[in-house]
Amino acid sequence: MTRFASLDSLRSACQVLPDGDANAAAAASARQNTLTKPQGSLGRLEDVAIWLAHWRGRTVPALDKVEILVFAGSHGVTARGVSAFPAEVTAQMVGNFATGGAAINQLAKQAGATLTVIPLDIDRPTADFAAAPAMAEADFLVAVGTGYDAVATDCDLLCLGEMGIGNTTAASAIAAALFGGSGRDWVGRGTGVDDAGLARKAETVATALALHGTALADPLEALRRVGGRELAAIFGATLAARHLRIPLVLDGFVCTAAAAPLARLHASGLAHTIAGHTSAEAGHAKLLAVMQLKPLLDLDMRLGEASGACLAVNILRGALACHAGMATFAEAGVSDG
Amino acid sequence: MTRFASLDSLRSACQVLPDGDANAAAAASARQNTLTKPQGSLGRLEDVAIWLAHWRGRTVPALDKVEILVFAGSHGVTARGVSAFPAEVTAQMVGNFATGGAAINQLAKQAGATLTVIPLDIDRPTADFAAAPAMAEADFLVAVGTGYDAVATDCDLLCLGEMGIGNTTAASAIAAALFGGSGRDWVGRGTGVDDAGLARKAETVATALALHGTALADPLEALRRVGGRELAAIFGATLAARHLRIPLVLDGFVCTAAAAPLARLHASGLAHTIAGHTSAEAGHAKLLAVMQLKPLLDLDMRLGEASGACLAVNILRGALACHAGMATFAEAGVSDG
Repeated sequence: MTRFASLDSLRSACQVLPDGDANAAAAASARQNTLTKPQGSLGRLEDVAIWLAHWRGRTVPALDKVEILVFAGSHGVTARGVSAFPAEVTAQMVGNFATGGAAINQLAKQAGATLTVIPLDIDRPTADFAAAPAMAEADFLVAVGTGYDAVATDCDLLCLGEMGIGNTTAASAIAAALFGGSGRDWVGRGTGVDDAGLARKAETVATALALHGTALADPLEALRRVGGRELAAIFGATLAARHLRIPLVLDGFVCTAAAAPLARLHASGLAHTIAGHTSAEAGHAKLLAVMQLKPLLDLDMRLGEASGACLAVNILRGALACHAGMATFAEAGVSDG
Repeated sequence: MTRFASLDSLRSACQVLPDGDANAAAAASARQNTLTKPQGSLGRLEDVAIWLAHWRGRTVPALDKVEILVFAGSHGVTARGVSAFPAEVTAQMVGNFATGGAAINQLAKQAGATLTVIPLDIDRPTADFAAAPAMAEADFLVAVGTGYDAVATDCDLLCLGEMGIGNTTAASAIAAALFGGSGRDWVGRGTGVDDAGLARKAETVATALALHGTALADPLEALRRVGGRELAAIFGATLAARHLRIPLVLDGFVCTAAAAPLARLHASGLAHTIAGHTSAEAGHAKLLAVMQLKPLLDLDMRLGEASGACLAVNILRGALACHAGMATFAEAGVSDG
């Protein structure tokens, strides 16, 4: 029995979303203005402290339990030569995550976060989405449900990421489906394709857009038809986090594209999320701009694996350290401006 | 006996500077290209890992001992109404640092760094630099020497910052002296002056530039005449770090302006430094651009106290965690692109 029995039940779950706690946010904002610093001088550290208060429902929230979920999927579209790495690298990297050798293993430890990697039938690639829907409805709903159920109800902050050779092509197709533009507008070099590979990516997206046509106007159908299982799982986890009022840090291009349907299904669907960084992958800055998400970091990273989201956790920790630990003007006997 | 007996002996100390270890940097770069990620996909994390290797002289450096030095000084120029906060806040904030209530106390703890705050004769403000040199030569050299001697020889990474009501006006004057432009080109709102205060800052800098004239062509004279003791100390600490080959993270506008004379005295004078962030203070982005420093973070902060530099330490820790801990393609059995 999967969590979502049909596309319609999933769609319903996307339409009634809880808001955060406006009182906690207001109290956090008031607190910021009493701390020993010129008002606003901590910039985005102040904003994110208030945002965390809003979603955790506490004036002074904590980040005791930070969880990183990395979903992995295999893509039939790799047969079109859209990646610089062979398709088997997805499974090899899942092995590398398990033995602790990947970037995200190190970054998770450094940020005080727990890492869980969830492979989604990686020995059974999705269909080539330029020739058929990537996933049948049942397959898609299982992937969404897996992501949904992977979110621990008691976590203070969630970071999402992915691994999947070929998935920047899927993300480009989703971005084009949701926000318009051609394949060429959204594709980038991914793990490092050359000019010919880049042209193949653009062509693949163009073929998929023509094939699926108006069916892509439905954000859930777009995710099912031109996405992938790890993207569907990211979507599910993003929805679960919202239902649980857990603040969420998005990672790069693929992760942002996977969460994007929720913004299309509900006007404030991604209010509980923040963009951890802007990736060097060509489409990401454009996607963040159209989604009006302002990234915390910009470090020319383009690895995925939740690596940019996880680095941003350090910034959130710094923000909360100030929010929780600073003296007020009154406590410190400092003259207010 | 001060460390620098004269401006000339200080100038000599700025002219022969050691370089880092090119072999260690090359080995670190080679190591990066074997790790399980597409080459270059960690972006600036790769660059900073190699930069740290270069200055620590080790292929895989560590950040065991990270020190933050915050220098505080009092400015006679505050009599001109250039700050939104009264001059006594400098001493009050030094008290707040001592009792652990300031932002930098929280951020230092969060980043695993030790904080040392060094007040420089804060009960004796420098002269109003729009009417006279801020410091006599002896006073200036003591401040530079204090900063120089504050650097622990065994630290792995140094962050510098400052506290001093009035010091963004001094920093603006230094920036104009070193890089041209008028007061209006460099002043900003500091702790939050209104339009009238901003105009007074620009006018104060203009008056100082006219008063000191061509004497400001000498970077050390610029620092002495229109700087302040905490800026002189930052300069001294920056010089010491270079002599000790300790990598250094600069903070905001004031800190960057204080270090800038070393770039004018030696072509690679600031090669051992990195800009931790770009501040929201108006002149900082411009100053970083003219100095060709590319900041790691951009979080709309404008607090000083080494707060932006300290936050950036987390990014450096993440970079080294990946550099030291990731598996190679061969170790992990992952196919290389």
